[in-house]
Amino acid sequence: MIVIKSIREMQSISESARKSNRIIGFVPTMGYFHDGHLSLMKIARPKCDLLVVSIFVNPIQFGVNEDFSKYPRDIKRDKELCESVNVDIVFIPNECEIFPPDFSTKVEIAGRVTECLCSAFRPGHFSGVATIVAKLFNIIKPHFSVFGQKDAQQLVVIKKMVKELNSPVEIVAGATVREQDGLAMSSRNEYLTPEHRQVAPVLYKSLLRAKDLLILGQKDTSVIISEIRKFIDSNGPFKIQYIEILNADTLESIASAKGKIIIALAAFLGKTRLIDNIVVEL
Amino acid sequence: MIVIKSIREMQSISESARKSNRIIGFVPTMGYFHDGHLSLMKIARPKCDLLVVSIFVNPIQFGVNEDFSKYPRDIKRDKELCESVNVDIVFIPNECEIFPPDFSTKVEIAGRVTECLCSAFRPGHFSGVATIVAKLFNIIKPHFSVFGQKDAQQLVVIKKMVKELNSPVEIVAGATVREQDGLAMSSRNEYLTPEHRQVAPVLYKSLLRAKDLLILGQKDTSVIISEIRKFIDSNGPFKIQYIEILNADTLESIASAKGKIIIALAAFLGKTRLIDNIVVEL
Repeated sequence: MIVIKSIREMQSISESARKSNRIIGFVPTMGYFHDGHLSLMKIARPKCDLLVVSIFVNPIQFGVNEDFSKYPRDIKRDKELCESVNVDIVFIPNECEIFPPDFSTKVEIAGRVTECLCSAFRPGHFSGVATIVAKLFNIIKPHFSVFGQKDAQQLVVIKKMVKELNSPVEIVAGATVREQDGLAMSSRNEYLTPEHRQVAPVLYKSLLRAKDLLILGQKDTSVIISEIRKFIDSNGPFKIQYIEILNADTLESIASAKGKIIIALAAFLGKTRLIDNIVVEL
Repeated sequence: MIVIKSIREMQSISESARKSNRIIGFVPTMGYFHDGHLSLMKIARPKCDLLVVSIFVNPIQFGVNEDFSKYPRDIKRDKELCESVNVDIVFIPNECEIFPPDFSTKVEIAGRVTECLCSAFRPGHFSGVATIVAKLFNIIKPHFSVFGQKDAQQLVVIKKMVKELNSPVEIVAGATVREQDGLAMSSRNEYLTPEHRQVAPVLYKSLLRAKDLLILGQKDTSVIISEIRKFIDSNGPFKIQYIEILNADTLESIASAKGKIIIALAAFLGKTRLIDNIVVEL
């Protein structure tokens, strides 16, 4: 495994790999790995000849009052974990090289996919994500890239960007990995107090209950949403930000559940913001 | 020479060419060729193994009151002219394939380079240009791409986009090609009445006079700009949109001329908008 920091060096390695018909797989991350990240690498590993993982805490996807500066980092441990799943290259670019002082280019995806779920609460977030991913795709030139289903809206936005900018990259989704009690893995779980950590799985339980209601025939999404809300409110000190039931591919709102739908939510426990979702096929 | 219409087919040809170490040169155009376009193809030809020219009148770079629908088109003649300068591939994509109905991705370059010259008068224009160029680069995967110096601001914007999105494409500038009387070649010259065509070279003459003033030691850009304005106003029925003297690389405004500067202007003759510029090294 090698560690690359220079953009130019990474680009030249990728270019050579493509010329010699080696398939490049790519997992973009902000580091501080948990089993969710590792599962994405394990999905990519057998599908490629050169597995590249980037570690970059991307400043432009954080809002002014968000946790950019305190976002957890542990590069040494991250490198060891990459090695343990046979990553070939860890790309750790320098922030100043990625965003030089007069940087002013943005990739923006407008419309429904950035008007729902997290968008209202994290203005600029998805543009920040799309911009860094567009850059990383130009640097790493992957044949495919793996993104976690946990960040469901991000996955939809990136798929749309890739399609609309004609990026020659296949987007692969990796299932959400959960703790034994059901809590979706996230680097931000680190922030939870022991008390909050204990109640955090309520979010996933609320999603499973909603799924049960759907399977039992409840089609009215507003009824299901209010059931989820009641369950969460009565099982912990959560502050719910949103609960939405949408078409899983377009993120269009739906009144009556049918087809492939996503139930997605965001809630605070103290200052820690947690998101989770499940996809249900009806 | 072959004509390709399908995005997928173009991508696959480019991918194969890169694998076999063939250098891809690319000239993006909106067609209706004049010698300016052909000069860009001639610059590219000896530098590459596969020369691709795209013809696509890009709707998203035209404003609502601009000339998208009446923009001149002559695909048959364009193909013959491509053949005459040994182009390998003419890429003529379908508008619906480039911009499917729910298309909503934009590449935006903010800051000085899109706050001067044409920007105020053509809102959204440079974002439309950057977006189509980003798409074409992903489809054609060129090693280098040639853009005309006539569209000076476009050239600066594309250079900035390529640098900031880490696109692995070298941007080459092609000098402005002029009619014998000095008028910069443009597909829009077609719109001029015979009377307007006759006075149109006044714009270039005003730039040459400004260059003389600079060489003679006049540093005050406001003095030079007012001389240009006087000359144009007294030599034809022009409606001047802007005259600016800027740093040629950053497009920063300069009060006292030094270094590499650009003198750029836009003016109407009747309903036809003409632009021109010269770069002067002091």
